[in-house]
Amino acid sequence: MLLLILYGSGLARALRFIMLDLDDLIEQARNGRSRAIARLITKVENSQAAAAKIVPALYAFTGKAHIIGVTGAPGSGKSSLVNELAKTLRRRDHKVAIVAVDPSSPFTGGALLGDRVRMRDLSGDKGIFIRSLASRGSLGGLSQATAAVIKVLDAAKFDTILVETVGAGQAEVDIAGAAHTTLVIEAPGMGDDVQSIKAGILEIADILVVNKADRPGAARTVRSLKTMLQLGQAMMVNHHGRSLQAPAAAANGSQNDEPVWQVPVQETVAIDGTGVEALLDVILAHKTHLQLTDGWLAQEKRRSRREIEALLHLRFMEQFQTAVSQDDREQLITAVANRETDPYTAVTEIFKQIKT
Amino acid sequence: MLLLILYGSGLARALRFIMLDLDDLIEQARNGRSRAIARLITKVENSQAAAAKIVPALYAFTGKAHIIGVTGAPGSGKSSLVNELAKTLRRRDHKVAIVAVDPSSPFTGGALLGDRVRMRDLSGDKGIFIRSLASRGSLGGLSQATAAVIKVLDAAKFDTILVETVGAGQAEVDIAGAAHTTLVIEAPGMGDDVQSIKAGILEIADILVVNKADRPGAARTVRSLKTMLQLGQAMMVNHHGRSLQAPAAAANGSQNDEPVWQVPVQETVAIDGTGVEALLDVILAHKTHLQLTDGWLAQEKRRSRREIEALLHLRFMEQFQTAVSQDDREQLITAVANRETDPYTAVTEIFKQIKT
Repeated sequence: MLLLILYGSGLARALRFIMLDLDDLIEQARNGRSRAIARLITKVENSQAAAAKIVPALYAFTGKAHIIGVTGAPGSGKSSLVNELAKTLRRRDHKVAIVAVDPSSPFTGGALLGDRVRMRDLSGDKGIFIRSLASRGSLGGLSQATAAVIKVLDAAKFDTILVETVGAGQAEVDIAGAAHTTLVIEAPGMGDDVQSIKAGILEIADILVVNKADRPGAARTVRSLKTMLQLGQAMMVNHHGRSLQAPAAAANGSQNDEPVWQVPVQETVAIDGTGVEALLDVILAHKTHLQLTDGWLAQEKRRSRREIEALLHLRFMEQFQTAVSQDDREQLITAVANRETDPYTAVTEIFKQIKT
Repeated sequence: MLLLILYGSGLARALRFIMLDLDDLIEQARNGRSRAIARLITKVENSQAAAAKIVPALYAFTGKAHIIGVTGAPGSGKSSLVNELAKTLRRRDHKVAIVAVDPSSPFTGGALLGDRVRMRDLSGDKGIFIRSLASRGSLGGLSQATAAVIKVLDAAKFDTILVETVGAGQAEVDIAGAAHTTLVIEAPGMGDDVQSIKAGILEIADILVVNKADRPGAARTVRSLKTMLQLGQAMMVNHHGRSLQAPAAAANGSQNDEPVWQVPVQETVAIDGTGVEALLDVILAHKTHLQLTDGWLAQEKRRSRREIEALLHLRFMEQFQTAVSQDDREQLITAVANRETDPYTAVTEIFKQIKT
């Protein structure tokens, strides 16, 4: 009994120490200490378990930063533009963080390289923080890590967080889900299929940017983007009318009175800074738009929903791996591969094991 | 009691009828009836519930087709190359199916357009079947639908199934997971970031293709791809040595005796057919390689594992939506958005509700 109490108090003390340590770290991060921020980021990036402790501890401090997603086709000059935006934001006294997310493999260390390239221009400034995240296998894990890293930076009082993603595809759509304002970058003359990519990405864009606007064909790219936007908006209205708008809202017209954000097409030349000030004005106008309408809260809800679903999935997969032994899993997989059973029947089998 | 028996036998009869109908359809599909194949595909594409009935019923007939994934950057001329490959395969008397998967939005109907463009060349031939799949919101849903569609075509005795994906990113990696042989298509002069995309995609490539090889810069593209392959292979050996190779296998050397597939770089000009015969020879050489080594079975296992995990996720999300009411879900999401709780605590709460 005595032992139990001792053990109990020892445990409590140890726990208190761990918590104090974490609270300390968060306190330091909130006071702008780069090393504390970097340590928290490394923790949430590397371990799901660490994120599960750290994010709840700092979540109440989040929700203030303006999160800007920057995505677009390869060759569009995203990184240069992100650099210029960061410098322009610094001139306006924003504390800025850049998170460069590379959903491709960790093989080349491309993300790390990005760090170093950027460093030359921006290092030495305490108001800026740069971090690269590379894929650790699963996209789900990366999206989740990105979300957690953004929360650390948000709690550390960065005014603006630029989240840049490499490539184009579902990764972008997922990661852009973390942003308040999403920029899609295009450059003149990017090949024949460009339209099909833009199609998927148009829906996530709050602002379209034609970078390298001094190149031949820029005017045509701007025109074709504007045409696609008009087409897209016409179809969105349709879509909206059919399924998104609740009958009640339609009846009292409350949603219709709110100003609608018209996606603009901005031209920039990132390497010499042309158009970047103007782009930033539009970005901040979008932020104001969100704040004046229900947009900001609506986004927070959408983000919360996604994060909950992603965490549910991760937690469930853990449960599955605990409930079904490695051997049983391998046997099932081999049986499916040999056509002794099929994936659907195998999953029904697994669910029975998880239940019991 | 009597009623129960009547009800029971009625139900059994109804069930038997449904099963008969499905078996009929599968029988017809296996005899090469295009309408039956199309109907099965539409069913598995549109409804997870239908796929859960249809795939188990035809799964035993699958595993024979050679599934070829074709992916690559936009503008590389994938669709033309897939067309040419299909025509070349037809000349060698293969029954060929083309599945064009568009992970971007269904907004533009790009996938459907693809159908029509291809039709002109290939329609009227009974030995060829073409189908486009567009995204229905979630990537998980699309990968799963693609896997099910491939199974229908496999059971319908197509010798070769070409799976083409638009864009580059995680979608490709997921969908390429369904293929035995994965082609990554490149074209000369595709912009500065090209290397970072190729980095992620190099690992999934069994064959690299430089299409539009008559364009300036083709030789340089081939050279840089070969350099990247050498670099990648050097790192793979490292990686392999560290984690993939089991100590036992290393000791008895069984794995090392197997011939290793050296990823070749093939040059083609799809629009005039140059190099396509040679590419097909290499594709078939890769198939033979897989069959002579443990590669074919290893791939079946990897695929089975992925499919099981994807289905587990879908089934779990259904369970979650049943256990937690719409209202409760919305309340939790709002609480997280308002920083009254955090996503991790919310998920712990949900798991409690699912358990009880």
